[in-house]
Amino acid sequence: MTIRFCQLCGAQVDFRIPAGDSLARHICASCGYIHYENPRIVVGCVAEFEGRILLCKRAIEPRMGYWTLPAGFMENGESTSEGAARETEEEAGAVVSIDAAFALFSIAHIHQVHLFYRGRLPSASYLAGVESLEVGLFAAEDIPWDSLAFRSVKLCLQDYLADRSRGAFGFHEADLPPV
Amino acid sequence: MTIRFCQLCGAQVDFRIPAGDSLARHICASCGYIHYENPRIVVGCVAEFEGRILLCKRAIEPRMGYWTLPAGFMENGESTSEGAARETEEEAGAVVSIDAAFALFSIAHIHQVHLFYRGRLPSASYLAGVESLEVGLFAAEDIPWDSLAFRSVKLCLQDYLADRSRGAFGFHEADLPPV
Repeated sequence: MTIRFCQLCGAQVDFRIPAGDSLARHICASCGYIHYENPRIVVGCVAEFEGRILLCKRAIEPRMGYWTLPAGFMENGESTSEGAARETEEEAGAVVSIDAAFALFSIAHIHQVHLFYRGRLPSASYLAGVESLEVGLFAAEDIPWDSLAFRSVKLCLQDYLADRSRGAFGFHEADLPPV
Repeated sequence: MTIRFCQLCGAQVDFRIPAGDSLARHICASCGYIHYENPRIVVGCVAEFEGRILLCKRAIEPRMGYWTLPAGFMENGESTSEGAARETEEEAGAVVSIDAAFALFSIAHIHQVHLFYRGRLPSASYLAGVESLEVGLFAAEDIPWDSLAFRSVKLCLQDYLADRSRGAFGFHEADLPPV
């Protein structure tokens, strides 16, 4: 996405390095406002009920029709765990009790950081939200590995099941370069 | 910061809820582009050399003259750990070897997430960058607790020293509401 006009005054912007900075930014030629662009955070959740994990089949692009953990862009005014719980409710109609941060993935080339929490569902109550075609609880052996939407989701599920097998959850992180 | 004009076409924006969304966004009245606003990530580092921790005295507002861990806004095109190492080099002139993610703080009311890494310095080589008045290595008993710049920095240092004392580093997180 290219910034052409100033958000504040509507004048055209230059693309140059501000004084004291080291990277070029979009700077308003009229009012001087600097338009910083920064990575966005995707927050999500591995929500478990009686050993099964909540997955959503995406109803929107990218990766429509593929399975994912409930996750989405963090909003202003919420914490990371609040965002993870909100996305679980919006996409899967499920109220999750968040336990702890579990996995962090940096995907530098698309300017995203994915952060997944561990959580528990108090019941097997869920319902596909508008961004999901279908929602379900999957036992480890039923996870649709070949139909997962994103690399971060696959890695998170692998880490989760490995930790669960050994009986102790850690915190995982990885940088995901372009494939 | 209020968005008044479209970044893409320069027309005025409306503030309304887009179709299928639940929050109001700044939407271009002409081209329809939606200007999402999301929290920003601050990445930083607890960099240790022979038991002492690297701190910087801020040369810029906010909190000029107060001590902080090297940290700053994550940039597009880098991973969280790369950002933490970059900030350590920029603010403290030190090349740090990053070990692992250590602490995560959500500060919802200012739309920020602070993520600190643990790292080690290969030598006591450092130099105040343009955003620092002074840089130093501090033993635990010499940390200027009353002159720290930010709550997240104080909590991170407390968690770090507590973990170090018990001989095992975990991953910590907290939501920091307005004081």
